[in-house]
Amino acid sequence: MRSLHHFPLQPQSRRVRIQLREKKLEFDSQAEKPWERREGLLALNPAGETPVLVEDNRLVVAGAYAIGEYLEEAYQDTPLLGRTPGYRAEVRRLVAWFDQKFEREVTQNLLFEKMVKRLLGQGGPDSAAIRAGKANIRIHLDYISWLADRRNWLAGEDFSLADIAAAAQISAIDYMGDVAWEHHREAAEWYARVKSRPSFRQILADTWPGTQPPAHYADLDF
Amino acid sequence: MRSLHHFPLQPQSRRVRIQLREKKLEFDSQAEKPWERREGLLALNPAGETPVLVEDNRLVVAGAYAIGEYLEEAYQDTPLLGRTPGYRAEVRRLVAWFDQKFEREVTQNLLFEKMVKRLLGQGGPDSAAIRAGKANIRIHLDYISWLADRRNWLAGEDFSLADIAAAAQISAIDYMGDVAWEHHREAAEWYARVKSRPSFRQILADTWPGTQPPAHYADLDF
Repeated sequence: MRSLHHFPLQPQSRRVRIQLREKKLEFDSQAEKPWERREGLLALNPAGETPVLVEDNRLVVAGAYAIGEYLEEAYQDTPLLGRTPGYRAEVRRLVAWFDQKFEREVTQNLLFEKMVKRLLGQGGPDSAAIRAGKANIRIHLDYISWLADRRNWLAGEDFSLADIAAAAQISAIDYMGDVAWEHHREAAEWYARVKSRPSFRQILADTWPGTQPPAHYADLDF
Repeated sequence: MRSLHHFPLQPQSRRVRIQLREKKLEFDSQAEKPWERREGLLALNPAGETPVLVEDNRLVVAGAYAIGEYLEEAYQDTPLLGRTPGYRAEVRRLVAWFDQKFEREVTQNLLFEKMVKRLLGQGGPDSAAIRAGKANIRIHLDYISWLADRRNWLAGEDFSLADIAAAAQISAIDYMGDVAWEHHREAAEWYARVKSRPSFRQILADTWPGTQPPAHYADLDF
């Protein structure tokens, strides 16, 4: 059976899980704690990072970039990158926006400071980082609202890896209760549509020991 | 004429320039200073970042991820991702290693602190960041040596986007004289082979006002 090594709260792991489910590809979930630097994980990916996909034929694909592109090449039903050069460029521009820019400006400041530092025993959160993350997320939600107001999905007419990458990041922040949805109506409506997809259901059922998401987190009609 | 908006010292801009030249695709170079947030650049890429490619037919492709994949799809001569699923997964794993892990652990600590901060008027370099960058680069050069000792090129038998992404990062650090090549023989031999490719020539001719690279920087037989 295909298996995915992932860290449940990590947005890049979540985006691969959603992509696999959108494409109706079955897999065993292997939850990892990357900071423990487990030898079995390091043997699959020398970076020691999740996600890592292992196919039935033992092909190992490491990292969200390689897995995202591999799945589109290997399983062409339910294409999630689009079919024209222009659409594919737009999807990939937005995937990088969320995987890299949102990750650096929001997720590192909030998820890392609030959750990961505690797991690593690196002390309490840095309040300047938390403030920066909360200021930055407003700009990103405004941009999502701007896109969602003009397009059916974030990259255009079709649901794509751009929606998956964005919702994977936002779901991790929303788990911590750090999204002020009431100020971002179009973004909230877009996110409610993503959340209601069957591919998203298991993400919303994840919990992390010692933490609890806010009441609206898994509510599809929030 | 195809045009590329780039920032000459930025590794992700350099990797696109090298990829274009490897594929023998002509282009006009438009040097940008992304921190000035020029309106023309923001209109092409709302992130305000380089690189951005504009094709003759006005197709805009923004960001190194989107451009790298687009060029492989649109111009299939001289493939730089490999032809088998396993090789492509390995190339993309290493591209992400250099674009993201090396960038975060080395380039942000050295290039940002030493050059970009001065350009932005954000004061002098943070000595703790410089120390971290110099410690981290040794680990990355050891990994390059390990790969180069076992393989013809970094991802395997064929020259690929992995070599381009790695050399683009390293060239920016080498410009500042921060690579202790004498301790990393296999990595130095691999880098000398990349440097001697015609696609690399113009990278080595870049200079930045008020700075000068070390004597070995553009020397192909260093």
